[in-house]
Amino acid sequence: MSSEITIPPIADFHVHVRDGDMMRLVVPTIRQGGVSVAYIMPNLVPPLTTVDDVLNYKERLKDVDPEVNYLMTLYLSPAITPPVIRAAKKAGITGVKCYPHGVTTNSDHGVQSYEPFYPTFAAMEEEDMVLNLHGECPSRDPDIHLLNAEESFLPTLFDIHKRFPKLRIVLEHCTSKAAVEAVLKCGDSVAATITAHHLYLTLDNWAGNSHNFCKPVAKLPSDRQALIEAATSGNKKFFFGSDSAPHPLSAKEKGRNAAAGVYTQSHALAYLAEIFEKAGKLEKLEDFASKFGRTFYRIPEDRSGWLVTLKKEQSVVPMTIGEGVTTVVPFLAGETLHWKIYNNFA
Amino acid sequence: MSSEITIPPIADFHVHVRDGDMMRLVVPTIRQGGVSVAYIMPNLVPPLTTVDDVLNYKERLKDVDPEVNYLMTLYLSPAITPPVIRAAKKAGITGVKCYPHGVTTNSDHGVQSYEPFYPTFAAMEEEDMVLNLHGECPSRDPDIHLLNAEESFLPTLFDIHKRFPKLRIVLEHCTSKAAVEAVLKCGDSVAATITAHHLYLTLDNWAGNSHNFCKPVAKLPSDRQALIEAATSGNKKFFFGSDSAPHPLSAKEKGRNAAAGVYTQSHALAYLAEIFEKAGKLEKLEDFASKFGRTFYRIPEDRSGWLVTLKKEQSVVPMTIGEGVTTVVPFLAGETLHWKIYNNFA
Repeated sequence: MSSEITIPPIADFHVHVRDGDMMRLVVPTIRQGGVSVAYIMPNLVPPLTTVDDVLNYKERLKDVDPEVNYLMTLYLSPAITPPVIRAAKKAGITGVKCYPHGVTTNSDHGVQSYEPFYPTFAAMEEEDMVLNLHGECPSRDPDIHLLNAEESFLPTLFDIHKRFPKLRIVLEHCTSKAAVEAVLKCGDSVAATITAHHLYLTLDNWAGNSHNFCKPVAKLPSDRQALIEAATSGNKKFFFGSDSAPHPLSAKEKGRNAAAGVYTQSHALAYLAEIFEKAGKLEKLEDFASKFGRTFYRIPEDRSGWLVTLKKEQSVVPMTIGEGVTTVVPFLAGETLHWKIYNNFA
Repeated sequence: MSSEITIPPIADFHVHVRDGDMMRLVVPTIRQGGVSVAYIMPNLVPPLTTVDDVLNYKERLKDVDPEVNYLMTLYLSPAITPPVIRAAKKAGITGVKCYPHGVTTNSDHGVQSYEPFYPTFAAMEEEDMVLNLHGECPSRDPDIHLLNAEESFLPTLFDIHKRFPKLRIVLEHCTSKAAVEAVLKCGDSVAATITAHHLYLTLDNWAGNSHNFCKPVAKLPSDRQALIEAATSGNKKFFFGSDSAPHPLSAKEKGRNAAAGVYTQSHALAYLAEIFEKAGKLEKLEDFASKFGRTFYRIPEDRSGWLVTLKKEQSVVPMTIGEGVTTVVPFLAGETLHWKIYNNFA
């Protein structure tokens, strides 16, 4: 087995970098993780629902690290009308993220019904913009719970795909065997991102461990296995989106309402290498972590000369990054990873 | 609907009151909760594996509150041989608690295989002692997880019941529809306790909320519904065992390895009344909370003159009880209950 892998930087198609001090802490860790393309989520407080808001946010990100290729998104809301879609396309915005109401961090403004957005989806299809779906049904229905919320959403995925067959749709951070199977059933315009942490975690790992708690929650061992198989399968429908979601330590280590989210940005590629090696599929790592996502989003390979080298070396994930109110606990803090990321940028 | 209920004090057939400062904090809350009979768990550190240890512990409990009827248990371990069972019976010890290895708080000394204990179970059957089973399979098997750990244990319950048909067995804190159905299938010597908090909680309630995290974990809405139906059914196989499990706040409000357990002792009967009223089954409350358990354990009704009155009054559960290192957060802290407990003892 090779003990060193050198590849162009990877692409992370689901990134939360927040704003303000937290942004200044985590944006520099995008490249540390081996990532040159970051697909940026719009769920700030308040959410990004105008083209100007998105462009201003992109400027703030570039002020922190101008070397990352930030792909920007709008937050689906009644403000996102067909004319806004056309303006967004012209302004270089890549996609629109759809959060069902109340399912995760900063989703209070999320969608309660999809039908009112059909004209928006039609405009996106015309303009060839990407629809990013947080695929969970809210728990308003007494039969919906955290373990079936994603599976319960799949009929909606099928329905939107059928109505807008050319609309490129990404089922974000898919976590269940049922979701993997659903994405396989759809046409080529439908793909899915898989996070690093969902390749590690099951329900047992977040029980009593809020640092492993995120939405959608990690599910059963059989679901994790399906995700590992999808990620390492070489099927272009599945690619990497970390859903790295930094929260201050104080929002995680509490008795009630611990924030949902796992921060993986700084060690993104190292987390993945560990899983791919264990699965005996290291040769599929670049496809999943870079090529398939770039192909779906039509983003060329990075030719800047920046190369990422993974070396088979033990390193311990730090217990925290940052300090004070923006202290963040990385995924697997204090544990040993067996691949270490070396970047050749200055 | 009546707005006042007066009954003799109830019986709680699964109680953790710890030792030392924590014991001094929570033992006085047994009677506050409307409880006069407390079936005391032996999982101290180290666990109670000798008759003398159990009797000494009982003395310490009586020093704190002599008015409670403490029913005592041994912790099943290789030390619990048939002669120990006979000595325990003579000493007035009621039962033996069996923890599978590593499934919950202080279960490091727990059972890894049941077969070596058959002679002990035979002696218990002869001596008419009660076997209290924590019914979960440990997660050593990669297909076992927190949601199926109890269901996976049920074949073991059937097996022990078949081998020792007269041995009285209690499946403790049952949490799943499958467990309810299994207990119904067994003969009269098998019963189950149900906690107060499992009548309220599902998986969604402990996700990111460590105060609601316990073992066995609360499961799906359909499981909770099965528990409510069993508890309010008037079937004598199901009776109250709170599994009230106090942990210091600092052990609960942490990012990793939050302690498993929900403290319900101080408001035990009030929590139950709320659920029974909502189910339209207040008339079954006394059966579940007192009579069926006393019948199974052959403990007469309390005739001391102490009566417990539940009044239909709003009261807010305190955010904490105790102070300093023994601060404990009660179940539903800060929330409003609609029944209030009045005891007529001094």
